[in-house]
Amino acid sequence: MFECLFEQASLLKKICEAIKELTDQACFEVSGTGISLQAMDSSHVSLVSFLLRNEHFSQFRCDRNLTLGLNLKMITKILKTAGNEDRVTLRAEDDGDHLVMVIESKTGNKISSYEVKMLDIDQQAFGVNETDYKASTKMSSEEFQRICHDLLVVGDTVSIEMTKDGITFSVSGTETSGCITCRQSGTVDDESVGTEITLQEPMNLSFALKFLNLFTKATPLSNSVSIEMSADQPLCIHYDIGDMGNIRYFLAPKIDDEEGAGAAGAPAAAPTEAAGGDDE
Amino acid sequence: MFECLFEQASLLKKICEAIKELTDQACFEVSGTGISLQAMDSSHVSLVSFLLRNEHFSQFRCDRNLTLGLNLKMITKILKTAGNEDRVTLRAEDDGDHLVMVIESKTGNKISSYEVKMLDIDQQAFGVNETDYKASTKMSSEEFQRICHDLLVVGDTVSIEMTKDGITFSVSGTETSGCITCRQSGTVDDESVGTEITLQEPMNLSFALKFLNLFTKATPLSNSVSIEMSADQPLCIHYDIGDMGNIRYFLAPKIDDEEGAGAAGAPAAAPTEAAGGDDE
Amino acid sequence: MFECLFEQASLLKKICEAIKELTDQACFEVSGTGISLQAMDSSHVSLVSFLLRNEHFSQFRCDRNLTLGLNLKMITKILKTAGNEDRVTLRAEDDGDHLVMVIESKTGNKISSYEVKMLDIDQQAFGVNETDYKASTKMSSEEFQRICHDLLVVGDTVSIEMTKDGITFSVSGTETSGCITCRQSGTVDDESVGTEITLQEPMNLSFALKFLNLFTKATPLSNSVSIEMSADQPLCIHYDIGDMGNIRYFLAPKIDDEEGAGAAGAPAAAPTEAAGGDDE
Repeated sequence: MFECLFEQASLLKKICEAIKELTDQACFEVSGTGISLQAMDSSHVSLVSFLLRNEHFSQFRCDRNLTLGLNLKMITKILKTAGNEDRVTLRAEDDGDHLVMVIESKTGNKISSYEVKMLDIDQQAFGVNETDYKASTKMSSEEFQRICHDLLVVGDTVSIEMTKDGITFSVSGTETSGCITCRQSGTVDDESVGTEITLQEPMNLSFALKFLNLFTKATPLSNSVSIEMSADQPLCIHYDIGDMGNIRYFLAPKIDDEEGAGAAGAPAAAPTEAAGGDDE
Repeated sequence: MFECLFEQASLLKKICEAIKELTDQACFEVSGTGISLQAMDSSHVSLVSFLLRNEHFSQFRCDRNLTLGLNLKMITKILKTAGNEDRVTLRAEDDGDHLVMVIESKTGNKISSYEVKMLDIDQQAFGVNETDYKASTKMSSEEFQRICHDLLVVGDTVSIEMTKDGITFSVSGTETSGCITCRQSGTVDDESVGTEITLQEPMNLSFALKFLNLFTKATPLSNSVSIEMSADQPLCIHYDIGDMGNIRYFLAPKIDDEEGAGAAGAPAAAPTEAAGGDDE
Repeated sequence: MFECLFEQASLLKKICEAIKELTDQACFEVSGTGISLQAMDSSHVSLVSFLLRNEHFSQFRCDRNLTLGLNLKMITKILKTAGNEDRVTLRAEDDGDHLVMVIESKTGNKISSYEVKMLDIDQQAFGVNETDYKASTKMSSEEFQRICHDLLVVGDTVSIEMTKDGITFSVSGTETSGCITCRQSGTVDDESVGTEITLQEPMNLSFALKFLNLFTKATPLSNSVSIEMSADQPLCIHYDIGDMGNIRYFLAPKIDDEEGAGAAGAPAAAPTEAAGGDDE
C-alpha cells in the first residue's frame, strides 16, 4: 500500500498546477524514497521533472514501488474543493485501480473522500543528465514570471543573455521590439529576492516564450527560480520546493535560422539532449 | 396603493438574486400581512416559496391585495445600481401597470427613480403542505453551498444521507466518486455554524445537484440553512431571513432506477407533492 | 530630439486608457510647450482634446515640433508591463520612425526598453471653440461614471437637465424608464466631491449614452468632472489632470425627433460645431 499525508492541501495544489498545463495525464512514481515524475508536454517539446522526498512527510508509507497514472485535470478539480489548510491523504492499494484522496478540514468536522480511477499511460523512460551548466541566474520567481508574460506582448521568441552584469531578455516583433534587463544585485534584502549570476562563460540562447510561460506555473512553489544554460544543452528552469524536493523544466534552444523579428511559427525541436541514459 | 421601504438595498438585492435563477418572471403577492411569492422554476421541476412579513418594515402600506408581475432580470439590473446601504422604496398604484422603485443614497443627495412595466403572468395556485419532516439538518449555509458546488466536479446526482452521526453527500461519476460528510457537532462556537441533526428516522434520498446549486443562491440571506427530508416528500431547503420571513425551495427526489454511477440525464419529476390544498 | 520623463507610469497609463477606447491610432503633437492631441473617435461622432504642459515634467526636452503617430493598443499593452510607480521615459529622434519607451523599476535593478514603430496617420486639423457654456455642473467623476453606466440598463439616449436645484439624467426604454438626480450641494466635505451647478439658463439636451460611457474612461485622472452645455453646441465633458493639463470630450446633442422611448438606433450626428477655425 502507498499512503502519504500532506499537512496542507496548498502544497499539493501548487504541484498539480505546476504540471497540469504541460500534460493532462501523468505517471507519478512512488517508492520508499518519495514521489517523482518525469513527463514531456503534450507536444513533446519540453520536459518536466519533479521530486518530493519521503522524509519530509509527517506520514509516508510505500510497501512497493507503484506507478500512478493520473488524470491531472480531475485531480486538480478535486483539490480545488480543499481549503489551503485542509489535510490531504493520498492512498493506493498495491493492486488497486484507483487513487483515494481524503480531504479533512482543520476542525475535523468535515471529511471528503474521492476515488479516482487510475489510467494506463504509455510510460516513456526519460533520464535527465545532471549537467554542469555554464551560466546560471537565480532571481525572483515572480519577476521571471512577469517578464515571460510581459514579453508575449511583443513576440514569441525570447533571447536570454547572461553576462556578469545581469540577465537580459529580448524579443523582436514585426513593429515592436523589447528587452528587459535585471541587473546583478550585490546585496539582497529580506523581503525581495535579488538577481545572482554565476558564469563560467557568457551565454545567449533563444527559446519559445510559450513554454517558458507554462513553466512559470510553478511560481507559487518558490520565491526564487534558477535559469540554467549551456551551449547545445536544453535550458533548465529550476524551482526548489522548500527542502522537500524540486521541480525542473527543460527546453531545447531554438536554432539560429528560426530566430529573428516576428519569428513565431514552429516550436523548438524536441529536447532529445534531455533524454540520456542516466537516471537521476 | 402599495408602498414599502427597504432600509438597506442589500436585503432586496439578495432576495432577487435568490429567485431570479429559478424564474425570470415572478408574481409577488402583496397584502396587509407582507410580501410573498410562490413560483416553479422555468422547467417546472422545483418550487420556491418566499415570505416577508409586513411588521418588520419601517414603512409598509398596502390598501388592497395586489399581484405584481415582475421581470426579475430587469429588477435585478436596477438594484445593481443601488449601493448596499441605499434606501429602496417600492410603490405600485392599485390600478397601475408599473412598479416604481426609488433608490436614495445615504446622504440623500442622489435620488434614482425607475418605472418598470408590470407583466401579465399566468399565475398558478400552489399550496405548500406544512410537512413534519422525518429528518432534518441545520448547517452552515456557506458550507452547504460549497458542497453542492464541489460535488458537481464528480457527477449530477447527489445522495443525501442523514444519520445520527452526520449528513453525507455522495456522488458517483464514470471515473470518479466522491462523498462528503459533515459530522454532527455538539457545541458550536460563535463564529461558525455547526451541524445539527434532528432525526425521527435515518433517511437517504437522491436529488439533482443542478437544482440544489440554484437554491444556494439564497446563501447570502442567512448564515444557516435547514435541509429537511421525508420519504415520498419533496426535499425542503429552508433559509430564514432574519426574523422577517423565509425562503424555501422544494425538490422531488430522484427515483431509484434513475440513480447510479454517471446518471446525468433527465431531471427529477415535478414536485407534485409540493402542491397541496392548504395555503400557508 | 524629444524626450520626457513620467515619474510615475500610472499617469501615462491613465491617459492612454482615457483615449484608446475612442481611437486606436492617435497623433500626439509634441512641442516646446508640452504634449497635445486632438482626435475624433473611429465613428467620427465625438472629439477628444488632450493637453499636458511641459513645465510639470521633471525632464522635458523638445528640440523640434514632432507628430508622433502611435498605435495606442500596443502602447497600452507595453504600459501594462510597468508598475504604477515605475518611471517611464519617452524618446523620439527628430527624423526617427519609432518611439522608444524606457521603463525603470523604483530600485533601478530592472530596466525595460521598447521600440515601437510609428504610424503615418492622416492628420485632420481640428479647432476647438472655447465656448462660454450656459450651464455647467461640476460633480464627482466616479458618480458621473456610475450614472452613465447604470442608465445603460434602461436605454441608449440620456437627457441631461440642469436646473438651479440639481442635474437630472433621464432615460426611457421600451418597458422601463429611469431618472437620476444629483442635488446641488451647498457644502462639500473633504472626502467626497459635491455637485455644483453654474447656470446662465436652465438646459435640457439629449446625448448618446454610449459615448458618455467612453468618455468616463478618464475617471481615474481626476476626482471631479465638469459637464458643460450650451444650446446648439456640443456637450463638453472636462477632466483636469492635476494642474498639468486636461482632457476634454465633445459630443453633439441628439436632435429631437431621434429621441423618445426606446430610441436606440442611429448615433448622434457628427459634432461639426466642435471643429471651428480657432486653434486653442
